[in-house]
Parts: sequence; structure tokens; C-alpha cells
Amino acid sequence: MTSATSLFAPVEDELSLLVENLKNLIGARHPILYAAAEHLFGAQGKRVRPAIVLLVAKATMQDQDITPRHRRLAEITEMIHTASLVHDDVVDESELRRGVPTVHSSFGNRIAVLAGDFLFAQSSWYLANLDNLEVVKLLSQVIMDLAEGEIQQGLSRFSSTLSIEDYLEKSYFKTATLMANSAKASAVLSGTSSALAQSMYGYGRHFGLAFQIVDDILDFTGSTEELGKPAGSDLKSGNLTAPVLYALEEKPVLEVLIEREFAQPGDLEQALKLIAESQGIARSRDLARYHAQQAVQCLTELPQSASRQALTKLTDYVLRRLY
Amino acid sequence: MTSATSLFAPVEDELSLLVENLKNLIGARHPILYAAAEHLFGAQGKRVRPAIVLLVAKATMQDQDITPRHRRLAEITEMIHTASLVHDDVVDESELRRGVPTVHSSFGNRIAVLAGDFLFAQSSWYLANLDNLEVVKLLSQVIMDLAEGEIQQGLSRFSSTLSIEDYLEKSYFKTATLMANSAKASAVLSGTSSALAQSMYGYGRHFGLAFQIVDDILDFTGSTEELGKPAGSDLKSGNLTAPVLYALEEKPVLEVLIEREFAQPGDLEQALKLIAESQGIARSRDLARYHAQQAVQCLTELPQSASRQALTKLTDYVLRRLY
Repeated sequence: MTSATSLFAPVEDELSLLVENLKNLIGARHPILYAAAEHLFGAQGKRVRPAIVLLVAKATMQDQDITPRHRRLAEITEMIHTASLVHDDVVDESELRRGVPTVHSSFGNRIAVLAGDFLFAQSSWYLANLDNLEVVKLLSQVIMDLAEGEIQQGLSRFSSTLSIEDYLEKSYFKTATLMANSAKASAVLSGTSSALAQSMYGYGRHFGLAFQIVDDILDFTGSTEELGKPAGSDLKSGNLTAPVLYALEEKPVLEVLIEREFAQPGDLEQALKLIAESQGIARSRDLARYHAQQAVQCLTELPQSASRQALTKLTDYVLRRLY
Repeated sequence: MTSATSLFAPVEDELSLLVENLKNLIGARHPILYAAAEHLFGAQGKRVRPAIVLLVAKATMQDQDITPRHRRLAEITEMIHTASLVHDDVVDESELRRGVPTVHSSFGNRIAVLAGDFLFAQSSWYLANLDNLEVVKLLSQVIMDLAEGEIQQGLSRFSSTLSIEDYLEKSYFKTATLMANSAKASAVLSGTSSALAQSMYGYGRHFGLAFQIVDDILDFTGSTEELGKPAGSDLKSGNLTAPVLYALEEKPVLEVLIEREFAQPGDLEQALKLIAESQGIARSRDLARYHAQQAVQCLTELPQSASRQALTKLTDYVLRRLY
């Protein structure tokens, strides 16, 4: 089975450099944030977001080298992503992420808020200094969408009337907006036609949705060890995702359990059992597969290259996490 | 005695509209943030920052009307300021601000982090959509400076080797950068010469420093009622300001009390007494007066107008808070 890392072969050198740059950026200047930086930009991340930016950069620049601005954009995407994770963990009071204690649980809310603000601030500043107003607008839209998504997620907790369309919108705000807008921004920096830039947006959007749907399926099918948190964590906290929403159509009693927020003993276990017996997981897999296929469709206008090939394989890799 | 509000006469209508816009912006869309918005954009604020932007706009547009972009810039400055206050209160674990419970103490860290992130996100998005790359850069520098300032303040707590220059730099990051860069941005939106835009930067910078020094003096001379928090709060938390730094030159024993972080009974009271007996307050007043005068100097290139007059009077008003 191909690992994510070998998929990134065309941009492997750039990705290692990026991780070092980010650690130095946050850690070196401020001892108070050093431990947080080591923690944030340590080994555990998969760097999917900067990899997409760099692969789109290579695929659109063709024979020419990618530019320092493409590299900076890749750093910005990882900074924005990390800043939003750090603040989400404070808001959600999460203790673990991928099995590792979160910044706020290791260092306290104080450092978590500071580190997130510093990363957001640094990313706005780098962004402005890319000197491209279109790119500034694309990424500031991402920052808005992430904040909007976090608020919507709070508002829709335990709301069993959520539709699949609402769920996809929520997933767009949470995950796909960053991949979509940064893939487009990378194409804009390459000076492509606006049609091709829009296709790269489409790739990022569909890829991001497939990625999030797979993540949400794994919350039900994965083991505590694989997930770094107990299975069913999303459901327990009221974050309703594709498998539950599909299951609700078949098993109306689920609604009762959700509306009372799993308050009675055995509620959560019963809900998990109902979902497992339903077509919820199977239909969610189909939904993820659909978006992965749509993502690949968006690549057809790109000339053939190792980077285009890697973008295609990346969608397979996301789906293979399910098996 | 003139109130701040009557000083703002040339831009009074714009300021009332701004407060309503900000409340609606945050409150109307998200019930979860409604209470926070009422709280943040309620009556207690003095709206000094948007007033400066609007007065500079009027003073530089002369006979012409100020533009919707100037108004938007004024909103952006208040959003950035408010976002940074909300997050600072989480970081500093403050319970009260101007005698009113803070967002995090009223609604919890969760809402405080969300509300701050939402305001920062909204301000970046509005900023990008002003369609002026120079203005984007000026304000993204402010966001960087505010994050840097909060970190520096954390690093320099109880550090009695802090110089007056370090203190002024800290005050620039904390307060003056927003006033300086937004005053300049307002002039940029009016299409002034870059020399005049730079003078407006100078006005904001010196005004902001005077404003912060006065605030820091009042922390020693004000009553709990006036301050909305006990006198000496900054000193107690290790935030060393002008009066202490000047007093340290005369009273070396202060250093001992500071270095042991006022750990022994009576330490804080003794420190406050030493500062009161020193020239610290008087020299800090001179420093504030110097920066207020420098701010007025920066206005000389502006044509005479009610708005220029208001900018001048605003510096007197800041100093008059001391008497």
C-alpha cells in the first residue's frame, strides 16, 4: 500500500523544507511558543494541504520551476490550518488530536490562544506580502469560512433535522474551503487561465469533501488506536455526520436518542449499533467515492505530469483509508 | 470639561451608524454570539480608533464626501481592536474590563475564542475587499504587531531590566500600531501624497503612545471606581510601565520587590508607595505630553478644517484624563 509520503514524491524536498521553516518561524523567535511549535509542526501531520498547493504549482508551471511565492503559499495554508486546529481544540475542549495531547491541554488555553493568533497574524501578513490581491481575497475567504464553520458546528449540535446538503456545507467550511481556495490560488500564482484556476478550485473542493467524509466514516469504523480517540466521538459530542444522517432515514428511533443528547445509560451504544446495522456507512462510502471521482474529473485540463499523476493518486489514497 | 463624544462632533453620525452595523454584523447572524456582540459593542466603548480614521478621512478629503471605503476601514479598526481585547482577556485571564465582566468570564473561553476569531476573520475579509493592496499590508502589519505585542508582554513580565525604549516599543505594538497604520490607511484611501499619509501615521503613532502612557499612569493614580479594576493591577501582574521604570532609577529596592514578584506580604503596597514618592508619575506625564505635542506637529500639513481641529483637541483630551 502506497503511503501518503511516497505520493508526495514530486514535492518531497519542498515539504521537508516547509516543516523546518514553520518550526523556526514560530519556535525560534519566541521561547514561550517553542514547545508549542515542536508540538504543532512535529512528525504527526500528513501535510496534505501544502502538498496540494505544491503539486498544483508544479502541474501548472509545467517545464518552469515553481516560484518562492508558491512555496510561501504552501506555508500559509499549513499555518492557517494549524491555527484553526489549535483554536478549535480550545473551543471544543478536546484533550487529544491524533492520539497526541492538544496544545491547550499540554500548555493551557493561554498559550493555545496566543499560538493560534500568532499563526493567523503571520499568515495574513505573508499573504498581504504575496502582492496579489486575488490571492489575498481567496485566502481571506478561507479564514472567514473556517470561523463560520466553527460557529455553525456549534449551532447544529444534536440537530437531527440536519440534511446531507447542510452536512456538505458544514464540511466545506470546515475542510474543503482551504483545499479549494489554496489550490486555486496556486494556479493564480502560476498565471493560468481563470478556467483552469477554477478547475483547481473544483479539485480542492471535491477532494476536501471526500477527505472529510472519509474522516467522518472512520470515526465509526476505526479503532481507538487508529483514531487516537474513542470511536463515536463525533456522535457523542453532537457533531452529526454522513453515516448518522443516512441512518436516520432508516431508523427513526435514532432521532429520539440524538434529541435527548444520549442522556440515558446505553443511549450512545444503541445509536452506534443502529448506525452499524443501517446502510449509513455504505452510502457514506458512495458519497466519498463520488466526490473523489469528481475531483479527478477536474484534473483533465492539466497537461500530463508526475504532479498531475500524484494529485490523481491522492484521491485513491484517501478512499483506501476506508479499507 | 469637553467629553470625548462632543470632540467627535464632525463624525458623530458616522460613529452611531458604525456601532449599529457592528452589532448587527456579529449579533444578527449568530444567536450564539448575540449576547457577546451586545456586550462588546454596547455603550461603554469610546470609539477612539474609528473616530481617528473618520476624522483623518474628512480632513484629507476636504470638500469631498468621505467614501464607503473610509467607513468600512473605520469598522475594520474597531473589529480588530475588539477581537484583540477579547483574546487578550482570555490570555490574561482578566475578569473585568472597564468595570464590566469580560466576554470570557461572562460566556466562557469557548465563546470568547470564537467571537475573537470571527471578528479577526471578518476584518481580514473586509480588508481584502477594500481592493487596495497597500491598505491590506498596513492593517495586516497591525494584526502581526498585536500578536507580537501580546507575546512580548508575556515574555517581559516582572523583568526589571526593561528600558523606557522597550516600554515604548511594547506600547507601540499594543496600542499605537493600530492608530498609526489605520490613520495612514485612511489617508491612502483619500489618495493623498505619501508624505501626508506618513504624517497621519506619525499622528496615530504619537497619539497612541500618549494614550497608552496616560492609561498606564491612571493605573497608579486612579481609583478602583474610575478604573473598573483595583489600582496597581498592571504592576501586580508584572506588566511594568513608565511610572515604575522611571521610579526604578531612583529607588533600587523596587527591583528586589519586582524580581520576587511581590511574593511577600506588603510587597505590592511598598512598591506602590515607593513609586508614589518618586518622580515616576511626573516624568511619565512629561513623556505623555511630549508624544501628544509630537502628534499635533504631524497635523501641520493638513488644511484647516473642523476635523483637523478635532484631531488636535483629541490630544488635549487624552492628557486631561490625568487631571
